[in-house]
Amino acid sequence: MNFASDNWAGAHPAISEALHRHASGFAPAYGTSELDRKVEKRFCEIFEREVAVFFVATGTAANALSLAALNRPGGVAFCHSQAHAREDEGGAPEYLTGGARLCGVSGASGRMDHQALEEAIGRFPPEFVHAGQPMAVSLTQATEVGTVYGLSDLEAISGICRRHGLPLHMDGARFANALVTLDTTPAEMTWKRGIDILSFGGTKNGCWCAEAIVVMDPEKARDLPFIRKRAAHLFSKSRFVAAQFDAYFEDDLWLRNASHANAMAQRLAGILETSPAARLAWRPAANEVFAILSSKAAAHLEENGARFHSWSAPDDAADKPSPGEVLCRFVASYATTVEEIRQFETLIGSIRTPSGRVHA
Amino acid sequence: MNFASDNWAGAHPAISEALHRHASGFAPAYGTSELDRKVEKRFCEIFEREVAVFFVATGTAANALSLAALNRPGGVAFCHSQAHAREDEGGAPEYLTGGARLCGVSGASGRMDHQALEEAIGRFPPEFVHAGQPMAVSLTQATEVGTVYGLSDLEAISGICRRHGLPLHMDGARFANALVTLDTTPAEMTWKRGIDILSFGGTKNGCWCAEAIVVMDPEKARDLPFIRKRAAHLFSKSRFVAAQFDAYFEDDLWLRNASHANAMAQRLAGILETSPAARLAWRPAANEVFAILSSKAAAHLEENGARFHSWSAPDDAADKPSPGEVLCRFVASYATTVEEIRQFETLIGSIRTPSGRVHA
Amino acid sequence: MNFASDNWAGAHPAISEALHRHASGFAPAYGTSELDRKVEKRFCEIFEREVAVFFVATGTAANALSLAALNRPGGVAFCHSQAHAREDEGGAPEYLTGGARLCGVSGASGRMDHQALEEAIGRFPPEFVHAGQPMAVSLTQATEVGTVYGLSDLEAISGICRRHGLPLHMDGARFANALVTLDTTPAEMTWKRGIDILSFGGTKNGCWCAEAIVVMDPEKARDLPFIRKRAAHLFSKSRFVAAQFDAYFEDDLWLRNASHANAMAQRLAGILETSPAARLAWRPAANEVFAILSSKAAAHLEENGARFHSWSAPDDAADKPSPGEVLCRFVASYATTVEEIRQFETLIGSIRTPSGRVHA
Amino acid sequence: MNFASDNWAGAHPAISEALHRHASGFAPAYGTSELDRKVEKRFCEIFEREVAVFFVATGTAANALSLAALNRPGGVAFCHSQAHAREDEGGAPEYLTGGARLCGVSGASGRMDHQALEEAIGRFPPEFVHAGQPMAVSLTQATEVGTVYGLSDLEAISGICRRHGLPLHMDGARFANALVTLDTTPAEMTWKRGIDILSFGGTKNGCWCAEAIVVMDPEKARDLPFIRKRAAHLFSKSRFVAAQFDAYFEDDLWLRNASHANAMAQRLAGILETSPAARLAWRPAANEVFAILSSKAAAHLEENGARFHSWSAPDDAADKPSPGEVLCRFVASYATTVEEIRQFETLIGSIRTPSGRVHA
Repeated sequence: MNFASDNWAGAHPAISEALHRHASGFAPAYGTSELDRKVEKRFCEIFEREVAVFFVATGTAANALSLAALNRPGGVAFCHSQAHAREDEGGAPEYLTGGARLCGVSGASGRMDHQALEEAIGRFPPEFVHAGQPMAVSLTQATEVGTVYGLSDLEAISGICRRHGLPLHMDGARFANALVTLDTTPAEMTWKRGIDILSFGGTKNGCWCAEAIVVMDPEKARDLPFIRKRAAHLFSKSRFVAAQFDAYFEDDLWLRNASHANAMAQRLAGILETSPAARLAWRPAANEVFAILSSKAAAHLEENGARFHSWSAPDDAADKPSPGEVLCRFVASYATTVEEIRQFETLIGSIRTPSGRVHA
Repeated sequence: MNFASDNWAGAHPAISEALHRHASGFAPAYGTSELDRKVEKRFCEIFEREVAVFFVATGTAANALSLAALNRPGGVAFCHSQAHAREDEGGAPEYLTGGARLCGVSGASGRMDHQALEEAIGRFPPEFVHAGQPMAVSLTQATEVGTVYGLSDLEAISGICRRHGLPLHMDGARFANALVTLDTTPAEMTWKRGIDILSFGGTKNGCWCAEAIVVMDPEKARDLPFIRKRAAHLFSKSRFVAAQFDAYFEDDLWLRNASHANAMAQRLAGILETSPAARLAWRPAANEVFAILSSKAAAHLEENGARFHSWSAPDDAADKPSPGEVLCRFVASYATTVEEIRQFETLIGSIRTPSGRVHA
Repeated sequence: MNFASDNWAGAHPAISEALHRHASGFAPAYGTSELDRKVEKRFCEIFEREVAVFFVATGTAANALSLAALNRPGGVAFCHSQAHAREDEGGAPEYLTGGARLCGVSGASGRMDHQALEEAIGRFPPEFVHAGQPMAVSLTQATEVGTVYGLSDLEAISGICRRHGLPLHMDGARFANALVTLDTTPAEMTWKRGIDILSFGGTKNGCWCAEAIVVMDPEKARDLPFIRKRAAHLFSKSRFVAAQFDAYFEDDLWLRNASHANAMAQRLAGILETSPAARLAWRPAANEVFAILSSKAAAHLEENGARFHSWSAPDDAADKPSPGEVLCRFVASYATTVEEIRQFETLIGSIRTPSGRVHA
Repeated sequence: MNFASDNWAGAHPAISEALHRHASGFAPAYGTSELDRKVEKRFCEIFEREVAVFFVATGTAANALSLAALNRPGGVAFCHSQAHAREDEGGAPEYLTGGARLCGVSGASGRMDHQALEEAIGRFPPEFVHAGQPMAVSLTQATEVGTVYGLSDLEAISGICRRHGLPLHMDGARFANALVTLDTTPAEMTWKRGIDILSFGGTKNGCWCAEAIVVMDPEKARDLPFIRKRAAHLFSKSRFVAAQFDAYFEDDLWLRNASHANAMAQRLAGILETSPAARLAWRPAANEVFAILSSKAAAHLEENGARFHSWSAPDDAADKPSPGEVLCRFVASYATTVEEIRQFETLIGSIRTPSGRVHA
């Protein structure tokens, strides 16, 4: 019952086999092999336009180098206060941009509030050197708390960006999960909604380590080869990333993996929602479920083999854990099995609650 | 007949299989899995001491982050003028150190001349802020031109470092190749000779992408976890690097691969040396062979299926190509076959030279 | 009636004359002249210990280079949410540290709350690379809102720093103003209270451009000469800064200037407090006064020759402007005259308020 | 007899007096005062076009921030091997650009050789990420060794830049000295010859600390306000720099100072040239004279009150000191007096040389 994180799984068998298959033979290095080129073209097909694609191998690299590509002197990027790039990347964006700042924007359920975004940008008037200059907006899709931005929401945010002349970055570490939730296409969820640059994640959805920076307008990607190289993220045997993506896209594996993970998350959510030992903290829309449990119940689950993380409640959460309760995050992935879910259902069903439902 | 580079090969079958074997199952992320720990311990055994090990996935990352760990404000590192870190990494060391400089030191056959190193350091007197402060020496073993530093040579260089209070970094992208050439142990070739920090390379010797920063004194490695993270080189599924090293060390695969590559290089050298169409530029000691060919001969080889790179002659080379000649680099790897060598022998044997040996 | 800022004044006559006096003659460059040395010694006397002193010429340089000297990879500094270094320096600290972050800490009246500081540091557990590592605490004395930390308050904050192994920086852009308010000595307000490094400001208190980084333990200042040089803040004719400080300390000019500025601020505060057109936003303790005025009254003052700035109310202010009101900042300096104050008193007295006191 | 450096002098009386005159009164801060604006306009007049002007206070800041404004990821700037920015600024350009590199170009007499420049740029082919991307060329006028580029020479270098799409920076720390040597106008020596951005120096020619970054096309200067601010080089009392320049331009003081310094240098050169104790290392064209003296003669001069620096002979110098000889640099400035020159003439005349001229 491992719901700790979608990066605790290894690699999907189809991806591992592809990697194995491509291991032999010689090919030009540094991203110039036929396989690299083939997969780059595949990205163009998937995004229904000419895009520039840069393979990297960590989501942090994809985010930080995307922001480095957008950065300007004294630059300030705007993102949700809980954004991974701001909170969980050890300062990589700040470091790899040479000192840009990430300004946190509030918003319920992990999505930036439009008004709050406007206000945040407004605190950096044009040419006011003492504050710095806005350089980008970054949103996470699916969000850090398992929700997604709707298409109209993306549209609204990119509208704000356009008015301020700011490019829009999407952290798509869980891009596929959001895509299947919205039942839409990569094009619709990105450049047709005003996204300029995307961190396209494969690692959390079945790859060993495959991420891509996707620049919607290749003309704007001229510096990225140098940015990637000097950050030491250009692989000599780059085709090992390409091979992962090759299998990832084959027969829609990526969408099937994401659908499975989301479905498992929905089943987890159903179990948690109906358990007297737990209540949903908010409605999940991707592969992460956040629930409030009594500390005792959480401890019981862990002692009996369920792995998950406790979590800090967002400041703006409508429902927060009371004393004696704990907010818990449960993550499903391509590797989560129905059997695990059933086992968890049985386990949580075994918890006796003296006074009925936790949130009675 | 692919002698273009040791990074044109994919992954050795044993390594690829190990990766495949570890693909399933869950494990803690970010380098905390049992496999990560096991391989870290294996490094300690191999180096016969407690060392701190940091997995990364490109040689450029290993070098640049090593230098970042040694850097000081206004820092200047000294390395051979042709060092990979200085010439071929797109400025990664300068970028990831926030502006350190790499001062080139001359020396025949890819090895820093001791006197030249002393003089270079001497141009940065202590406390002379206008120049900057020396912060490290970096040498490459095996060197960029297929030679190796002998143990006494390493000793002499680390002696210079000690006198100036400078730590000594070894770029070991081809560490195993040098090791088997010298027929010595990792301990003897590193910390027993005064090496403080090592870029331990696996990628050019049979891995997909496995490099490790090895810090001989773990006390001096306290900042490296943060340095690696903020440079976006900490992998969530870090065990995919660990798995490669696990197989790399199993049954001395790494030493066998390097021995094979070196042996193939020696056969290539013998063929080139005795061919009337070529002469060795200098004596090879690892898996790279540099030879001077007539431009016609080189073209003939390429047209008939041999892959190799032409190369710029070092300023201090004793023997340089004359007009109508070209310096060529031939690289052997774990994947080079005896069959390829024989094929090359036949091919070069078919070249007719009107006036006998090229260097007659 | 210019209360816009203490940096709108030029240079005090005594300082200007000293500069003029030192203009002729030759002296060694780059901070090695006799005058530089003399003034450095003066700093040691004033601080009653051996200190290392580095002249710079902007407060932003003093702050950013101090933090650069304290920085560590992935570093996070903690300061008040409204700290000048965080809000008003255009990202200089982040830039000159190569990407460190300034984490805002809340606290009433411009002073960090002890509990909030503890909690902020607690969000960066040791060795947790995903967050980064704490590297310093920075406080401003006098604060950005015209208050001061008491000696016991400084003691408490440095106690927190010691427990977490963090050095403590003081932004003393208005050091002298705080000093005369507390009626204490530089030693008592700094190293005896646990301050490790100080931005000692002269510019706002009568100099053209004279700031000094004062490192209480010279052993810890070894990199600072290089940090200053590579940031281009080492002046060839450094003695022009030294000459300013020489006059600044002569006959306690610096303390007299600060006393005067503080006294003028107190008079302004008294006038504002007793005017029916205004109320103090909080009690001033240095040379800045914040008051809430009706927008009409503020406009009337400006139209009749009073210069001051409107200001954003701090989130944690007990008293905030209502609609139709505005928070205003009035700054006094060495150059503020009693005549100006009287003129202002007359002007504000002429405002008729229909319904009595603004805050009735 | 102080010929140590043109930065050992203080400030010219006219400049010091101007500063004194502007000390009183209030004015808006951070470069927005009327005086700042007036002097900016004066620059436009002097350069006969609309230019963007940014005051800083060290030549290193002017150079490093100019290069920061031109920088691109993986950027490489080309300059003479002995360029001040490369050799004497403690790594400031590398630091403030976040890791750009300065590639040394050889050339006799301190001027980049055209062919060598072409070859250096050629080693960085477009899109070759392993090397990096050329981003600018920087030349020094007058050069570090007291020579000047002729107008046609500047034209030739900017032609190379244009062909490679590279902007051209001029380090004009001794701009005025070159200008009077060439008897031309600022426009002719800069934008009419293809200079894009200029470090305009005042400090070595009579100011305390006044430098300006002059961007010939203001459209290209949009980021510079932020670059300057975040490097902590925007002064609150910026008018103290403006005031220096105001006096500097008044009645052509700057040209008169430079003419005087150059004339004094020519007299020094004449004395050295005709002395049996010395010979000119090369022909001086600005305010610096380099001569080879016997070590004994040099010691005698120093012991008797002459101040000058010994110097490393450039690799490409036609005439180098033999054993027992030393290359010496003599610098004249606005503050050098005819009396000092005469005194020096007498002193050197008193040296007895047993075997006639040093270079006999």
